Amino acid sequence: MQVIKGIATLLLAVSISTPNIMAQEVNNNVQKPTLEDLIPGGESYRYAENIYGLQWWGDICIKPDTDALKAINPKNGKEKTLFTLEQLNKALEEAGLKKLPMLYSIKLPWAEETKVLLPKSHRFAVYNWETGTVTKRDDLPKEPYANQDLHTESGNIAYTVQNNLYVNGSRITDEPEGVVCGTSVHRNEFGIHKGTFWSPSGKLLAFHRMDERMVTQYPLVDITARVGEVNNIRYPMAGMTSHQVTIGIYNLNSGKTLYLNAGDPTDRYFTNITWSPDEKSLYLIEVNRDQNHAKLCQYDVSTGELEGVLFEEKHDKYVEPQDPILFLPWDKTKFIYQSQRDGFKHLYLIDTNGNGFQSDSYKQLTQGEWLVQDILGFNTKKQELYILSTEQSPLQSNIYKVNLKSGKRTLIGNNEGVHRAQLSASGSYVIDTYTAPNVPRCINLINTQNGKSINLLTAQNPYAGFQMPTIEVGTIKASDGKTDLYYRLVKPADFDSSKQYPAIIYVYGGPHAQMITNGFMNGVRGWDIYMANQGYIMFSLDNRGSSNRGLEFENVTFRKLGVEEGKDQVKGAEFLKSLPYVDGNRIGVHGWSFGGHMTTALMLRYPEIFKVGVAGGPVIDWGYYEIMYGERYMDTPQTNPEGYKECNLNNHAGKLKGRLLIIHDDHDDTCVPQHTLSFMKACVEARTYPDLFIYPGHKHNVMGRDRVHLHEKITRYFQDNL
Amino acid sequence: MQVIKGIATLLLAVSISTPNIMAQEVNNNVQKPTLEDLIPGGESYRYAENIYGLQWWGDICIKPDTDALKAINPKNGKEKTLFTLEQLNKALEEAGLKKLPMLYSIKLPWAEETKVLLPKSHRFAVYNWETGTVTKRDDLPKEPYANQDLHTESGNIAYTVQNNLYVNGSRITDEPEGVVCGTSVHRNEFGIHKGTFWSPSGKLLAFHRMDERMVTQYPLVDITARVGEVNNIRYPMAGMTSHQVTIGIYNLNSGKTLYLNAGDPTDRYFTNITWSPDEKSLYLIEVNRDQNHAKLCQYDVSTGELEGVLFEEKHDKYVEPQDPILFLPWDKTKFIYQSQRDGFKHLYLIDTNGNGFQSDSYKQLTQGEWLVQDILGFNTKKQELYILSTEQSPLQSNIYKVNLKSGKRTLIGNNEGVHRAQLSASGSYVIDTYTAPNVPRCINLINTQNGKSINLLTAQNPYAGFQMPTIEVGTIKASDGKTDLYYRLVKPADFDSSKQYPAIIYVYGGPHAQMITNGFMNGVRGWDIYMANQGYIMFSLDNRGSSNRGLEFENVTFRKLGVEEGKDQVKGAEFLKSLPYVDGNRIGVHGWSFGGHMTTALMLRYPEIFKVGVAGGPVIDWGYYEIMYGERYMDTPQTNPEGYKECNLNNHAGKLKGRLLIIHDDHDDTCVPQHTLSFMKACVEARTYPDLFIYPGHKHNVMGRDRVHLHEKITRYFQDNL
Repeated sequence: MQVIKGIATLLLAVSISTPNIMAQEVNNNVQKPTLEDLIPGGESYRYAENIYGLQWWGDICIKPDTDALKAINPKNGKEKTLFTLEQLNKALEEAGLKKLPMLYSIKLPWAEETKVLLPKSHRFAVYNWETGTVTKRDDLPKEPYANQDLHTESGNIAYTVQNNLYVNGSRITDEPEGVVCGTSVHRNEFGIHKGTFWSPSGKLLAFHRMDERMVTQYPLVDITARVGEVNNIRYPMAGMTSHQVTIGIYNLNSGKTLYLNAGDPTDRYFTNITWSPDEKSLYLIEVNRDQNHAKLCQYDVSTGELEGVLFEEKHDKYVEPQDPILFLPWDKTKFIYQSQRDGFKHLYLIDTNGNGFQSDSYKQLTQGEWLVQDILGFNTKKQELYILSTEQSPLQSNIYKVNLKSGKRTLIGNNEGVHRAQLSASGSYVIDTYTAPNVPRCINLINTQNGKSINLLTAQNPYAGFQMPTIEVGTIKASDGKTDLYYRLVKPADFDSSKQYPAIIYVYGGPHAQMITNGFMNGVRGWDIYMANQGYIMFSLDNRGSSNRGLEFENVTFRKLGVEEGKDQVKGAEFLKSLPYVDGNRIGVHGWSFGGHMTTALMLRYPEIFKVGVAGGPVIDWGYYEIMYGERYMDTPQTNPEGYKECNLNNHAGKLKGRLLIIHDDHDDTCVPQHTLSFMKACVEARTYPDLFIYPGHKHNVMGRDRVHLHEKITRYFQDNL
Repeated sequence: MQVIKGIATLLLAVSISTPNIMAQEVNNNVQKPTLEDLIPGGESYRYAENIYGLQWWGDICIKPDTDALKAINPKNGKEKTLFTLEQLNKALEEAGLKKLPMLYSIKLPWAEETKVLLPKSHRFAVYNWETGTVTKRDDLPKEPYANQDLHTESGNIAYTVQNNLYVNGSRITDEPEGVVCGTSVHRNEFGIHKGTFWSPSGKLLAFHRMDERMVTQYPLVDITARVGEVNNIRYPMAGMTSHQVTIGIYNLNSGKTLYLNAGDPTDRYFTNITWSPDEKSLYLIEVNRDQNHAKLCQYDVSTGELEGVLFEEKHDKYVEPQDPILFLPWDKTKFIYQSQRDGFKHLYLIDTNGNGFQSDSYKQLTQGEWLVQDILGFNTKKQELYILSTEQSPLQSNIYKVNLKSGKRTLIGNNEGVHRAQLSASGSYVIDTYTAPNVPRCINLINTQNGKSINLLTAQNPYAGFQMPTIEVGTIKASDGKTDLYYRLVKPADFDSSKQYPAIIYVYGGPHAQMITNGFMNGVRGWDIYMANQGYIMFSLDNRGSSNRGLEFENVTFRKLGVEEGKDQVKGAEFLKSLPYVDGNRIGVHGWSFGGHMTTALMLRYPEIFKVGVAGGPVIDWGYYEIMYGERYMDTPQTNPEGYKECNLNNHAGKLKGRLLIIHDDHDDTCVPQHTLSFMKACVEARTYPDLFIYPGHKHNVMGRDRVHLHEKITRYFQDNL
């Protein structure tokens, strides 16, 4: 898009910018990436190079190649072939199984054995490359099943068929429609992402049972059926009746199931299930509906009765336990607990026989204005714990080892970028995968004791040869006048500081997410690159409420989601307007989900600032959002009527002045279409004129091939109107 | 909107058009009507003056005034007051009924008696103005009821509560959900608009029973509920299983119901129920699912058995009986039948004892290349029949009397415009209400024998004082090169023939409708007036397939709806392009329902002609449309696969080049939202870019106050894009 403001500006631009026009011509010889190149799902989209299926086999690094499985000695990086794909497929054929096209999906959970686990497509058969034999299992159903959970040591497998739970071919629950067993519950909040929990020996299986029969169903309509059909989802909305979860324990020896006697499950959340190492106790964290009170509870597995509450956490706003406790491998009486109790998520070592956070029953292992993001595992021999944390920068994840005796932390790998890591069985080695602003992906095998590193991959830039914008990261002050907020500014490759460019803010703004990182290209999105190439200044700002900055940074938004966040985004817009090369009258905003809410809210609350917005899958009224997430931040419509009123964008529909396109997917089961449709109705009644588009058949975001269409649609809207 | 084509044109326009600019300034002093003035539902919308509640009491004309009921002597036009509203309300108060705010809703069905029938709001109580008494009835239910049908002579009343039929307070059917009694059936096709039929004496009641349990339900989602709720509708789609109708006869004396033994009701339509004058027979027309074969059947009311088939009508394409037979008041062995058998709907006099259309059993009463539109009634004394017909012009409805002996036709009232009429009890007088291009509304009392006319109302122009466009009507040739098609061309008030205007075609194009008439302002719509005032040339054309032009004109579209109609509309567009003052590169199109289909089809089939379209509630795939209407014109998807494929606009989604906005209502139970949503999906897959808007809570069109929003939305789309 040409950026021209009237004839006078055009003439001015022509007269003073000949060098730049030439520069532009030069750039024009460099190909601009298309949306097909930049958007996941696009025909020519390329991920940065990677080594798929990289994993540990004990302390041996396994690398699946195209035609063979390679073992890398982490001491010297030397590779040897364990077996070839051809050998495997020959064995599969003999066993009457179909061929495996690639080796990326196999697993090596048995450190001491020459066996690989085949994927679900091969019904979890096991191939022994020494003997060349395939061991099939005959206890999996013919009908579709899901939520499979294999206990690799014992070989026991749990899975679900429709709403019931099965173990090794036997159904162990018999529940009617509306009661589901063995799945994730509480809409994946509180760190929950599965529904079965094997005991260390694999003889006992803890599982969720969720009764949803009392939850109102939301009807999503499938228009691809011959006649439109309803796909109902159980969707508990803020302030309404929620589902009820209980925890069962199935004993494989007795074939009996015992449910924990946790009392009335109404308005309670059960999360972070952990087995005690001796399998005699089950630990879990219980949270009240108000989400301001969590208890670490210990249940007797033999009776289902509560043995005790180890400790409780309370907060005026909310507590959000997301991590199960983790026992020390060398001392079964102590476990690691992750808490934000000092304002940042840190590690605490707690004694099972002590008094929780009282007196000397615990030890704080980490401390400081940074936070622990993940625990990678232990080195038992050295009594070390491995973690990812933001200690280097809130924009980064770096690997540290923490000595549990001395408390000393040591950086593993470099101090740049965003690291992900897999620790070897003994903790002696780590597979360190990281990206940094100029590093698309780098994978190293690192010795955790001496730091010696062997490079396995340094990815080529997937955008090599393309015209690319420039990216800057910096900070501005939040609307509180004191908090630093990180922004990312993307400028066209042929940037000319004498011109005035329209600017688009890409916003998310909600909790649990961060837009600006020190990862590759600072986390910029493909569409931002595309639009910068079209002559837009692209801007993002992680407002207060977003992640990796600590509890108070996040919970300032409590009971009024979108309001403080919006004030911070306005600071971003003011910063943009202060830039001489930004046309302050042409500022647009785009976001999805929480970012769709932000986009709509900014268009309505600040019509004098934002000219054009595109909001995708927006929350419009928190009363239509689900209980677990919604009530954590907003409480209920009954207890926070003012907050719900102020944050219900239907109440602001009459303030729309600029151009606002709202996009929603008709199968959005995260943020149901009622949000957007109610906003259309509110605008019709208020005589304002938003635009609308619906992607049929998609869920909470447009994925796959259609994602390119989505971004072309968004692009055109800004081109037409900004 | 300024009509400027680049700077050169602008300069040219300025240099040569000074007088016009002045003229425009003068015009600017005259107010342009707003959408609120022009769109029904708008705050300042005004209908042309009318006399509401005008009716006959025998041969006395009744005119409800604001505060009194007036009787007008049709011989001399003298008015006298029958009673005042105050008198009525005093009597109502004494009877314990609420006051009636206006007299417009009362009826005088008893010619010889000084009684009026009060409306449903007053539970059909009767007020005698001589005695000053109110007679209430106590046989109506307290719960909501509908489909009330009062036999005024006997006082018997039928009505429905939910899906069952009641008479005088007693339930006479006991059907489960999915079976409805006493309502209109077959989706109001075949002229059906009610479900109960009193015998002449009121002792017998024929009624529909419709079993819909085998019909697929389409889910409409009500997003105004706390949690979106499904409102299912039984919607039989083309080629699928349809409902089954049977005809019951309830005998008030015996309290028993007998169903006609008409055989298996699968895939059959039952319509045009008529009682024989002696109540011994029930006549109805039976149509096969293919709709190419109709039979006039006579059933014995005492046994329910078929007495005989009087005659049959067949056609290669379709037959569409829409009118019940009508017995002569003076000869119970003869009835009037309306048929298109000679290509135009005409009247036939048929003998019940004869052989239908064989030999001398019938007499054709009217003939010619025009058609009968309605039968008003008889003058028994003179043996005359009164009708409305297009004999003067296909754009008109005029009143004729037809002498049944001589066949002579005499025009009643003038030969202009579009007339509606009510005949008095004896047929001696008619209330003639008509509009003509310059006549907003004129009401005359006319003596049918001597033609003497008394003017009751000559309405003021509701747009007096407003700047109004000019309207022209003419004909062009259809794409067959021979058929004349009527068009209407609307030019801005300040029209300047040296300018080039963008043009918008407003299209409907389907059967049973006509856009261009000789009614007020030639039938122009408020939005056309508005857009002409904004500087657009507005154009409409009644293509082949539309009404009032005879059978062959209509049925040329058979099995390929939209195709021939589109070719004719292209002729209209070519005509527009031939006009020197039309900018041929800026032609838009807008329509709703069938017109939404036409709009979308034109945008897709003729992307080189049409730049911008706005389609409302469109049929996209006739496979999603209902059986009765859809299969008449398209047959079934099974028997006409090529036609359904060609006419399914999803198969043309990739051809979209211009800007197309599709608007649908989320409670559209005529043309379900699946049409538009499937088109969005098809366009996403084809990588084309339509726009979309949805009006929540509305049915097949946006009505009431929101209709102004709709037209502002449509206006902005053309202003932005055309």
